[in-house]
Amino acid sequence: MALDQSESPAVGSPAPLPDIRRFVVYGAGAIGGVLGARLFAAGHDVVLIARGEHLAAIRADGLRVDSPDDSQTLRIPAVEHPSEIDWRPGDVALLAMKSTGTEEALRALAAVADPGTPIVVVQNGVANELAALRHFANVYGVHVRFPATHLTPGVVEAQSAPVTGILDLGRYPDGVDDIAEQVAAAFRSATFLSEARPDIMRGKYTKLLGNIGNAVDALCGGRGEDISPVNKLIREEGRAVLEAVGISYLSFDDDRERRGEAIRTRPVNGKARTGSSSWQSLARATGSIEADHLNGEIVLLGRIHGVPTPANELARHLANRAAREGTPPGSLSVAEFLALLSKAGSGAVLPTA
Amino acid sequence: MALDQSESPAVGSPAPLPDIRRFVVYGAGAIGGVLGARLFAAGHDVVLIARGEHLAAIRADGLRVDSPDDSQTLRIPAVEHPSEIDWRPGDVALLAMKSTGTEEALRALAAVADPGTPIVVVQNGVANELAALRHFANVYGVHVRFPATHLTPGVVEAQSAPVTGILDLGRYPDGVDDIAEQVAAAFRSATFLSEARPDIMRGKYTKLLGNIGNAVDALCGGRGEDISPVNKLIREEGRAVLEAVGISYLSFDDDRERRGEAIRTRPVNGKARTGSSSWQSLARATGSIEADHLNGEIVLLGRIHGVPTPANELARHLANRAAREGTPPGSLSVAEFLALLSKAGSGAVLPTA
Repeated sequence: MALDQSESPAVGSPAPLPDIRRFVVYGAGAIGGVLGARLFAAGHDVVLIARGEHLAAIRADGLRVDSPDDSQTLRIPAVEHPSEIDWRPGDVALLAMKSTGTEEALRALAAVADPGTPIVVVQNGVANELAALRHFANVYGVHVRFPATHLTPGVVEAQSAPVTGILDLGRYPDGVDDIAEQVAAAFRSATFLSEARPDIMRGKYTKLLGNIGNAVDALCGGRGEDISPVNKLIREEGRAVLEAVGISYLSFDDDRERRGEAIRTRPVNGKARTGSSSWQSLARATGSIEADHLNGEIVLLGRIHGVPTPANELARHLANRAAREGTPPGSLSVAEFLALLSKAGSGAVLPTA
Repeated sequence: MALDQSESPAVGSPAPLPDIRRFVVYGAGAIGGVLGARLFAAGHDVVLIARGEHLAAIRADGLRVDSPDDSQTLRIPAVEHPSEIDWRPGDVALLAMKSTGTEEALRALAAVADPGTPIVVVQNGVANELAALRHFANVYGVHVRFPATHLTPGVVEAQSAPVTGILDLGRYPDGVDDIAEQVAAAFRSATFLSEARPDIMRGKYTKLLGNIGNAVDALCGGRGEDISPVNKLIREEGRAVLEAVGISYLSFDDDRERRGEAIRTRPVNGKARTGSSSWQSLARATGSIEADHLNGEIVLLGRIHGVPTPANELARHLANRAAREGTPPGSLSVAEFLALLSKAGSGAVLPTA
């Protein structure tokens, strides 16, 4: 085995990290695409990692970002795989794929990037940070609050302007350091509100209580029905689980105060935002959906701590099935969901394909 | 979406589980292959899930199990993917792939098997159980103590006889139930020692402290050098981390008492056992190795709790690199490892490819 010491990765050494010089955005969908574009437009060095038709469109025509007041097309460098990047000190990876792709992405990253490379988790869910810390020594969680959409190859939409979103962040599992402050400053330079916070996971658990409504939005949304009775059940289970486990989260009042008037979701190209990221997964028929890391997180914690979570389990099960089978969003009525939940609650069984 | 209630999976309902009628062994390598064969030979219904040349050989000629006193060739049904199996009540899945394949396997299983299906984790490491519990409601951990080898397609070796191994198990995160007792009874019927235990993870953490020596065995083993000075460092870090986190594990005395004289490793086909499962991964040039879930588990816990783990980080880093690059086992001397560790400890850097 060669003992050549050149081009050498540090083994999670406590040496100070180099200043940020480039952002590698891994996953250039709604969140990653808009974030990468805003950073690039603000003058930061950016590389996108994307796939398939989206990558082909970005390479051919650039990435188009539509927002309420304008449309920008940006020639951002884009590759298909982390191995195509000349990783160097000062690189920071922003994870923005769906949580179902995190494990594979981390293994691909770990094969080519220094284990000290800062990994910034711009994803929903609360398990990606832990997965990243297994491979990398410096991991940061981001509490993502910004409305964005990706339905068409080469195009992403940012529905809020002039502030695109709020991206508070902190070191995982806790703390703030110089890199967190540098990332927050970069985000602020690029039309986001962003502060480094020492307890970022509290905010991410609050976001999780919101995101566990995504599956029902994907399954039952867009039919003109009120889905809030179902999501009330889902969130009651979520809060009961977090309370049983003793996980503290940001209060809804604190969350509302932080949001303030900053996020102003307005129509883009004359159309209102259609649905959550999970809704978009079904609309694009990607074959997968994030439910195992949203409702599934509540189900998992419930199983460990003996708290029943039938509504989250049903929402996860049906969302996964719809994603696998290519069922479009809005295929299920609220009454159908509640009827299935009543059967599941009685120890009965659920439909399979 | 169809609401047909036939052939329906339960949503982790608390209904009693059906008695075991079949074992689906997912991953038919050294551990899974021998275990599946012993269960099959004892009269249990078994299906193997295997890949590539190994699957082709099993299908063409049966699975051959060589052991100190005999060789058996068994015509065990084998498939490539869980979707080829007619999942039914009474099926139990035994996970026996390397931990690097667990996530993908669980997603494939969850798409076709009832969420109540018992998942028995016959793997090293301590994170597979949690990963399984995200997808399935009934998860069991197995403390695996049996010497086995898989180097040739269609062939596995069991090095201990007449007792093939010890497979204590329990419900995850804790407890014992009727399924745990049934699995233990099936294992006992098939040349294993096996007891259901209410605190199975204590045993698995003890096993982890042993398995974190596998990477150095793979890197430096078979050269005629004494690797114990390196693994002493690795295990001291491991114990320090578990103590800092407050994770309790089976004492080495209790572990030794349980082992007793049962495991008698003897030559198979005139050859002594060559190396650990990680050694075998490099010898077969599989392209991956389990280090992220063995040394990587210690590194992860160390990062969360502020305990330095440079020897485990170095072992993981070098083992992963050797696996990626197809380096055969025994490529590194103990002196080279210690020299690199000394550099890493001083904040210096490690060689890359």
